[in-house]
Amino acid sequence: MPLPHTAPSAARLLTVLRRELPEDALGIGPEATAPYAADRSGSRPEGEPLAVVHATRAEHVQTALRHAHELRVPVVPRGAGTGLSGGANAGAGSVVVDLSRMNRILELSPGEQTAVVEPGVITAELDRAAGEFGLRYAPDPASAAISTVGGNIATNAGGLRCAKYGVTRDAVLGLDAVLADGTLIRTGRRTVKGVTGYDLTALLTGSEGTLGVITAATVRLRPVPESTATVAAYFDTFAEGAEAVSALTAAHVEPAMAELLDGPVLAAVDAAQGTDLRSRGGSLLLLQCDGRAAEAEAEAAVRLLRKHAASVETTTDPVEADRLLTARRLVLPSLERLGRVLIEDIAVPRSQLAPAVREIAVIAERHDVRIFTFAHAADGNLHPILVLDPDSPDVPEAAWRAASDIFTTALRLGGTLTGEHGVGTLKRRWLAEELGAEQHALQRRVKAAFDPHHVLNPGKAL
Amino acid sequence: MPLPHTAPSAARLLTVLRRELPEDALGIGPEATAPYAADRSGSRPEGEPLAVVHATRAEHVQTALRHAHELRVPVVPRGAGTGLSGGANAGAGSVVVDLSRMNRILELSPGEQTAVVEPGVITAELDRAAGEFGLRYAPDPASAAISTVGGNIATNAGGLRCAKYGVTRDAVLGLDAVLADGTLIRTGRRTVKGVTGYDLTALLTGSEGTLGVITAATVRLRPVPESTATVAAYFDTFAEGAEAVSALTAAHVEPAMAELLDGPVLAAVDAAQGTDLRSRGGSLLLLQCDGRAAEAEAEAAVRLLRKHAASVETTTDPVEADRLLTARRLVLPSLERLGRVLIEDIAVPRSQLAPAVREIAVIAERHDVRIFTFAHAADGNLHPILVLDPDSPDVPEAAWRAASDIFTTALRLGGTLTGEHGVGTLKRRWLAEELGAEQHALQRRVKAAFDPHHVLNPGKAL
Repeated sequence: MPLPHTAPSAARLLTVLRRELPEDALGIGPEATAPYAADRSGSRPEGEPLAVVHATRAEHVQTALRHAHELRVPVVPRGAGTGLSGGANAGAGSVVVDLSRMNRILELSPGEQTAVVEPGVITAELDRAAGEFGLRYAPDPASAAISTVGGNIATNAGGLRCAKYGVTRDAVLGLDAVLADGTLIRTGRRTVKGVTGYDLTALLTGSEGTLGVITAATVRLRPVPESTATVAAYFDTFAEGAEAVSALTAAHVEPAMAELLDGPVLAAVDAAQGTDLRSRGGSLLLLQCDGRAAEAEAEAAVRLLRKHAASVETTTDPVEADRLLTARRLVLPSLERLGRVLIEDIAVPRSQLAPAVREIAVIAERHDVRIFTFAHAADGNLHPILVLDPDSPDVPEAAWRAASDIFTTALRLGGTLTGEHGVGTLKRRWLAEELGAEQHALQRRVKAAFDPHHVLNPGKAL
Repeated sequence: MPLPHTAPSAARLLTVLRRELPEDALGIGPEATAPYAADRSGSRPEGEPLAVVHATRAEHVQTALRHAHELRVPVVPRGAGTGLSGGANAGAGSVVVDLSRMNRILELSPGEQTAVVEPGVITAELDRAAGEFGLRYAPDPASAAISTVGGNIATNAGGLRCAKYGVTRDAVLGLDAVLADGTLIRTGRRTVKGVTGYDLTALLTGSEGTLGVITAATVRLRPVPESTATVAAYFDTFAEGAEAVSALTAAHVEPAMAELLDGPVLAAVDAAQGTDLRSRGGSLLLLQCDGRAAEAEAEAAVRLLRKHAASVETTTDPVEADRLLTARRLVLPSLERLGRVLIEDIAVPRSQLAPAVREIAVIAERHDVRIFTFAHAADGNLHPILVLDPDSPDVPEAAWRAASDIFTTALRLGGTLTGEHGVGTLKRRWLAEELGAEQHALQRRVKAAFDPHHVLNPGKAL
C-alpha cells in the first residue's frame, strides 16, 4: 500500500517533533540517521530515513507516533538493529523510533520469578541480572549479547534452548505498547495464568513492529538448572545425525539444546580455527541436558547415540562443555571469513530434517551457490547459510533464487518460511503461499484494526 | 451491540439450512434445542435458540456460518457445554453450532509428537490415545473426562498440570477455523517453531467462539514422565500453606501440580466422605513432581515443607498417590452435596495467594455467603466456590455481590478476573476495568476484523 507521504508532511513532522521532544532525543540529517537505516539482513532500503527519535520514555514514543499517524509518515521501530530479515530497515521518508536508550530493568522479582523491563535492555543483561538470584531469562537467541528484549519480542526470537524452554512468546506475560495513533495500552498480566480478553500479548509478539511499539515487557524468569550435561556426537553424514535426533525424540529424551552442524560447516570451522572436526565426521551433534536429572538424561542419550554415531563424548564439567560447544560458537565467525553470509531460517517437521538438508545440497548445486547448514535439530529449525563473494556489493540473483528454492522446499515439506528470524522484507514474497489467501487477507484486516493508516513499519512482516 | 435479527431472517435461515444440510445435522424446536441452550455456569440465557446444527464436517460449519452471516443471525459454537462462564449459552434467536460429533482423532504422530484432531474429541480420549505411544496431551482441566479439545482451546483451559506444562495455548500449534462469513482458514503450522505472520493461533485460543469456529487442531504431545512422586502436607492455616508454596518457588522446586485446599473445603469433604482431613490441619497442599528427577525433587520439597507444615507424607506408589489425591478429586462432589455451587476463578501474583484468601474470607462474611476455596497454588490461580441454597432457582443478589468483590480484589492485588475459565457472559461487567478503555476498544476492533456483523457468539468474552 503506497503511503500518501509527501515532503510537506515530513517537514511538518520534523517541526513538531523538534518542538515537542527533548533536543537530544531527535537526530536529523544523514549523519544522525545513517547508523539506523538498516539491520543485519544484508539488504539495504532505498533512500535515507528522515529522522531518528531516541526515545528514553514511552511518552517520546507516543509523541512521535501521534504526529506521524496524523501526518501519515511511516515509522520504523528499532531495537539494536540485529535483525536478519530487514524488519528494521528504514527507507526514504520514514522516521526511526530507536528504543535502545530505554534500557532499564524496572523490576526484578525473585519471589514471583518475573521481571519488568524496558525494550532496549540487552537480552544477555537481563539474563545476567536474573542470574544474581539463581534465575535466568530462558530465551537465548544467538544474538543475546547484542540484541534487545524488545527486538526479541518483536520477532518472537528463538534460540538454542527452545527445544526445552520454548520461544520468546513463552516467556512474555504482558506488554506496554504504543499503538499507531500514540495510544498506550497494557496487555496481558503479571500472573502466570489468565484468559481475560483476546491474547494481544501473543499477537504483538512476533509482529515485527507493525502493530505497536513495545515500551515495556513483563517477562517470566526461570530457575537456573541445577546441573547441565553436554554430549558431542560425530556422524558419518548429516542424515545420520538427523535420524539420531529423531531417535532421541522417540526415546523421550528432552534435551535443552540439540545443535546439528553439517560437514561443510565443520570444514569451515577447521579452516578458520585450525581444528580437525571434519576429519572426525560428516556432521556434529551438540546436545545439552539440564535440570536435576541432567546426567541421567545425558547417559540415556549417549546409550542411544552410540548406536548411530561414529564417536560420542560427554561431560558435566563446564570447562570441558565449553570446549565441546566452541565449534558451535565459531560457526558464524568462521563462515564470515569465507565471504559475505546470508543467513536463512526455515523450520520443518522434525522427521523432515534429513530430507530438507538433502534438498538444500541439491539447491546449492543447481544455483552454484555455497550453502552451509546447521540446525536447532530438536525443533526442526534449519539455518542454511549462503556464503557469497565478499567483493560484490549486491546479493547475486543466483543467491536469491537459491533462497527462494529453500523456502518453497520448506513449505513443500510441511514446514514454515521462518522458524525464528521473522518475515521482515525478505520473505514477504512467499508469505501468501504459506498463509493462504484468506488468512493473508484476515491478517491485513487485523493490521488495519491496529494501524488503519499503515504508518507502523509499512512493507514489513505482512 | 444489538443484532438486527428479525423473525423473517430466522425463518429464511432455517429454510436454507434445511435445504443445504443433511437431515440429521439440523435440530429445530424446543425439544431439539433445549439440551444446547446453556452451559454449566449456572446462568441461563433468555429465550430458546432457533436451531442446532450438529456438524460432522467443516463444510457444515461453513454452510451454517455463511448464511447466518448473510442473514445476521447470531451463532453460538458449542463443544460439550461444560463451560463455567456462560460462553456457550445460546439465547433467543440464535443458532447453536454443535461440534461434539466432529470427534475423530485425524492423525497421531509419535515421531513428531503431534496430533491432529477434530474439535469434539474429548480431552481425556486424546490423552488416552497418546498414552498408547507413551505420550500425553498435557492440558488437563478438571473437566478433561467430559470437555472437548475444541472447547478447551476456545477457553484456553488450564488445569492441574499447568504449573509445569503450561495452559492449552502452549499445546496448540495450528488451527483450522471457520470465520464468521464461512471462510475456512488454517493458522499456525505443524512445526515446533515458526513466526510467519501474526499469531492468529494464539488469538483464536481463548477467544470463546467470538472470532471463529475451530474445526481442527494440531496439538503437541509430550512424553509421559518416567516417574511421579506425590507429597501431601497439612498446615494450620491456608496462609501457611500459601507461604510454603512461595518457599518452594523460591527454592526453585518446580512441581507439576500444587493444589492447595482450605479448611472449609477439607471439612466439606469430611462431611460428605467420612474422612478426617480437617482434624489434621487448616489447609492441605497436594504436590506432584514428575520426570526423571521426580523423587529427588519431591525429597527437596519435603525437606522444605517440614519447616512449614503440621505434617508431611510422600509416596511414589501410584495407589498410595491416588489415596492422597482423593481429597482433591472429592472437592466438587462434596460441595455439591451442600448446595448449588458457583465456581469462581481468579488468578493473582503468586505472592498474593494468602492475602487473596484472607480477603475472600472477609467477603464471605460481609455478604453472608458460604465460600470454599482451593487453588492451583503454583500458578496463583484460585477457585473460590460459592455454595448457594439448592432450593432457590436464582442466584441470590448477595452471591453476585460477593463474586463482584472477589473480582475487584483480584484486580486490586495485581491479578486477573479469570485464570482459566474465561469471561463468557458472567465477567463482562469487569472486563474494561482489567483491560483499560483503550485496550478494550482495540479488542473490539480486532473482533470486527474477524466478524464485522457480530454474528459469532455476540455478547460473550468482550
